[in-house]
Amino acid sequence: MAYWIGEQEIEDLSIGAAILGTGGGGNPYLGKLMAQKAVRNYGKVRLLSPHEVPDNAFVIPSGMWGAPTVILERIPVGDEAYKSFKCLEEASGREAFATMPLECGGINSTVPFLVAAQAGLPVVDADGMGRAFPEAQMVTFHVYGLNCSPMVMHSVRGDYCFIKTTDNCRLEMISRAVTVKMGGDAHVAAYSLTGRDIKEMAIPNTVSFAIRLGQAVRAALNKKENPVEAIVNVTGQSSYGRAIVLFKGMIVDVEKQMSSGFVRGQVTLEGMEEHRGSLMTVQFQNENLIAAVDGQVVASVPDLITLLDKETARPITTEALKYGYRIIALGIPTPELMRTEEALKVWSPRCFGYDMDYIPLEELHRNYYLKHIY
Amino acid sequence: MAYWIGEQEIEDLSIGAAILGTGGGGNPYLGKLMAQKAVRNYGKVRLLSPHEVPDNAFVIPSGMWGAPTVILERIPVGDEAYKSFKCLEEASGREAFATMPLECGGINSTVPFLVAAQAGLPVVDADGMGRAFPEAQMVTFHVYGLNCSPMVMHSVRGDYCFIKTTDNCRLEMISRAVTVKMGGDAHVAAYSLTGRDIKEMAIPNTVSFAIRLGQAVRAALNKKENPVEAIVNVTGQSSYGRAIVLFKGMIVDVEKQMSSGFVRGQVTLEGMEEHRGSLMTVQFQNENLIAAVDGQVVASVPDLITLLDKETARPITTEALKYGYRIIALGIPTPELMRTEEALKVWSPRCFGYDMDYIPLEELHRNYYLKHIY
Repeated sequence: MAYWIGEQEIEDLSIGAAILGTGGGGNPYLGKLMAQKAVRNYGKVRLLSPHEVPDNAFVIPSGMWGAPTVILERIPVGDEAYKSFKCLEEASGREAFATMPLECGGINSTVPFLVAAQAGLPVVDADGMGRAFPEAQMVTFHVYGLNCSPMVMHSVRGDYCFIKTTDNCRLEMISRAVTVKMGGDAHVAAYSLTGRDIKEMAIPNTVSFAIRLGQAVRAALNKKENPVEAIVNVTGQSSYGRAIVLFKGMIVDVEKQMSSGFVRGQVTLEGMEEHRGSLMTVQFQNENLIAAVDGQVVASVPDLITLLDKETARPITTEALKYGYRIIALGIPTPELMRTEEALKVWSPRCFGYDMDYIPLEELHRNYYLKHIY
Repeated sequence: MAYWIGEQEIEDLSIGAAILGTGGGGNPYLGKLMAQKAVRNYGKVRLLSPHEVPDNAFVIPSGMWGAPTVILERIPVGDEAYKSFKCLEEASGREAFATMPLECGGINSTVPFLVAAQAGLPVVDADGMGRAFPEAQMVTFHVYGLNCSPMVMHSVRGDYCFIKTTDNCRLEMISRAVTVKMGGDAHVAAYSLTGRDIKEMAIPNTVSFAIRLGQAVRAALNKKENPVEAIVNVTGQSSYGRAIVLFKGMIVDVEKQMSSGFVRGQVTLEGMEEHRGSLMTVQFQNENLIAAVDGQVVASVPDLITLLDKETARPITTEALKYGYRIIALGIPTPELMRTEEALKVWSPRCFGYDMDYIPLEELHRNYYLKHIY
């Protein structure tokens, strides 16, 4: 199903992608405004299903690197990602058929629409993780053997960098260092790939899924229904799994620090309602990684952990965490392609420095999933 | 005077350039071997005086970035700098007429011969500082208004980076971060310029001067004459100034640390002969920056401070500093183009974090220079 993305769809996408962004992926509000302005100026953008992309078509993904906090503080001009896209197209000597997100989370879900509107090209309805992740090699394209190089980066000041390595982890190291020196954020084109690659390696239909999520939240709020229930229902009918409410509570502590181009830290919630008397901690590196209640892990990467405003179901990003917010913490099972043995070598909790194996949400919460699935 | 550079000239150059390297600029032994192998394989390289370079000729300087200590520990393949040179040539869309050193100190004086031999091109007898300096913007080309961009970097592992900024200091920051992530060293082409630029901004005849210095040391040693005297005499007949013996002593302490891609530290010498009873300290950031005797500054950047082996007059590089070496510390006045007001804004002691103004060697040692010059 191909359809045209305009301002309303970008509005919905920004809400859905913030849910999938699990706290990271950059401020969705800013990304929304930039993409909406672009479709206003250049016209609506066509969203293509992966099967509509010819096998030999050349696609260049677009995105932003860096700490969400910085992106929020220093607003981009708006053409940086497009410039990176065009530079990579020119360096490749192949005409680009489309762009697509590397991560369908936060600002990185809307950046491709900004680029596509300026380039007059469609966006492919797929991405490399179905969520947000902090490092360049944390995409299915890397997991399943694609070279991320060459990568083009632009800063808001006009600095430009073209990088090529034989190893994606070294590219992550180098491009992260460049991002820091560019001021903490950079606008990137990388992981150029073919239609065949997308069909084999990408997580399909994540953009349209994010739009559906956002639409469901909006519809529920309009009808004065429970938006969290709407999210749970939509996720239950997707390639993800049915979402589960992990915790209800109020933020009582936030620890955050910027280091090596990342925002790292931990947020602590004091339980409310059925969780009164319990404490939840969520640890993050740009994205929420591990959630524990009273010391027991209740969800971990690569499953999605999203903190929602308890009243409006709006996702709270890492940079917006503040004392006093009333939160519903949601877990969403990640798609199967993200849980293979190869995939877990790249984004299991151990890859982020935690001494624990990944246990799927469905195993951690057997009773809930037995009740709702079988 | 154009002449052909073969293995013997490179031998002499490596000695002279180590004297001008003031402790930094990379291990001259390694650079010598690499350049000698290149002229053996590809033939001698022509050294051109700046006035032999047509005004509109396009010249791409070559060099290495990074900490000398690392360069010594992980030996390059030998084609990295040539690859950077060719990439920059191709990206510029102009045929290169020649290469040249950015700094005529240590390994960076011989890298251009490595590149020139492989490219079948001449080397211009000039550089951007007449010595070695640790940072990318510390060249006359920057001081007198040239843009360092674009810059191409290659690592020994085949990583490749093309960087363009509107500001040389930001380029230094970004390229330094890339150098660190490339493992501590990188092979660079940058500051591409025209023949006219060279005539206006470069320090002329520094390569042939370094060769003369090396020849003088070799000749003195062969004739069992005093090699330090030979150095003093050759510098006295050059666009530098006459060298002065600052101190004779034995190394009693070396402090060194690697940080942000630099080797920083301090060496302490206990006086011998006429300096018995005194202590000299020399502070360095890759290169020797400030020399003090009993707390009194006796030489400072941009004048050259070189530590020589007391018996052989071989320069001791920063990475080779060791307890017990008997040293003659030499000061050499820097050429006039390095002492202008604009120039001192870029490499006065304050630019390295020292709270002191630059005082020329000739003022610090008036009696010596009155005796020898007037």
